[in-house]
Amino acid sequence: MTSEPPAAPAPFHPLLVQQVRAHDTYGVWEGKDNDALLEPFIVDKAKRKTIPLVGDPDARTLARVRQFYAAVCLAVEQRTGIMAAPIFELSHEGFGRVVLTASRLIVLNRYLRDVHRFGFLSLDALEQEANRMIDEAVELIARFPEVARL
Amino acid sequence: MTSEPPAAPAPFHPLLVQQVRAHDTYGVWEGKDNDALLEPFIVDKAKRKTIPLVGDPDARTLARVRQFYAAVCLAVEQRTGIMAAPIFELSHEGFGRVVLTASRLIVLNRYLRDVHRFGFLSLDALEQEANRMIDEAVELIARFPEVARL
Repeated sequence: MTSEPPAAPAPFHPLLVQQVRAHDTYGVWEGKDNDALLEPFIVDKAKRKTIPLVGDPDARTLARVRQFYAAVCLAVEQRTGIMAAPIFELSHEGFGRVVLTASRLIVLNRYLRDVHRFGFLSLDALEQEANRMIDEAVELIARFPEVARL
Repeated sequence: MTSEPPAAPAPFHPLLVQQVRAHDTYGVWEGKDNDALLEPFIVDKAKRKTIPLVGDPDARTLARVRQFYAAVCLAVEQRTGIMAAPIFELSHEGFGRVVLTASRLIVLNRYLRDVHRFGFLSLDALEQEANRMIDEAVELIARFPEVARL
């Protein structure tokens, strides 16, 4: 008499790990495990406070923002078969906008601020936020497939 | 027995003039006429050769790129009633991409290169290229009004 729970979506973080390793030109992450590699994406409240908001966001932080949204695009492609690509417009002060595009459709639109402190409270929070974005993009593609395939 | 020529589209360059004057925070263009103000947008072959492609594009050149696409957005709004907004992703090396967005629709997508030399061979060429872009955007909005109004 046990009822089946609904199928959980495929976990997102393996795609993120894949992105980070794909961009690891100098082998910095070689020989390090996935937990260590995901650790910089986790920014809890205590860690947030230690990151100043003055000046330009750190280049490594910006790389993580790009890796995160690239992984979201990959997940969208896995679920829909349609390639998505990000466009970032970031100011030097750490705010801006990212849109994920599939042909002429904007499948996701997010305003970014305090990019210096980009990260998630926990790995669970990262999974949840990523999956919310992926769901939103997948739904929009289902609604306007013609625009996404133009 | 004269046949009417088709109505010419409204000229584009007054919108461009309006953009440049709107961004003229320090009054640099005050007391100068529109021809002088449009002159930097005209880059003929001789002038092209004098502009080096090394280093970052000049800040004033980047401002002109933004003013040009902002004016295209205005023209699209005048013809459709739908607001469009540009997103730029430009590398420091002077290439990149601009998309004009109306809600979730990308009404125009252009890859940019050699932004250092941004400009048009003549005022006629500027008019023609701008109107081609505006037509393309207006057509796409007519085709997918629901996405442009989401």
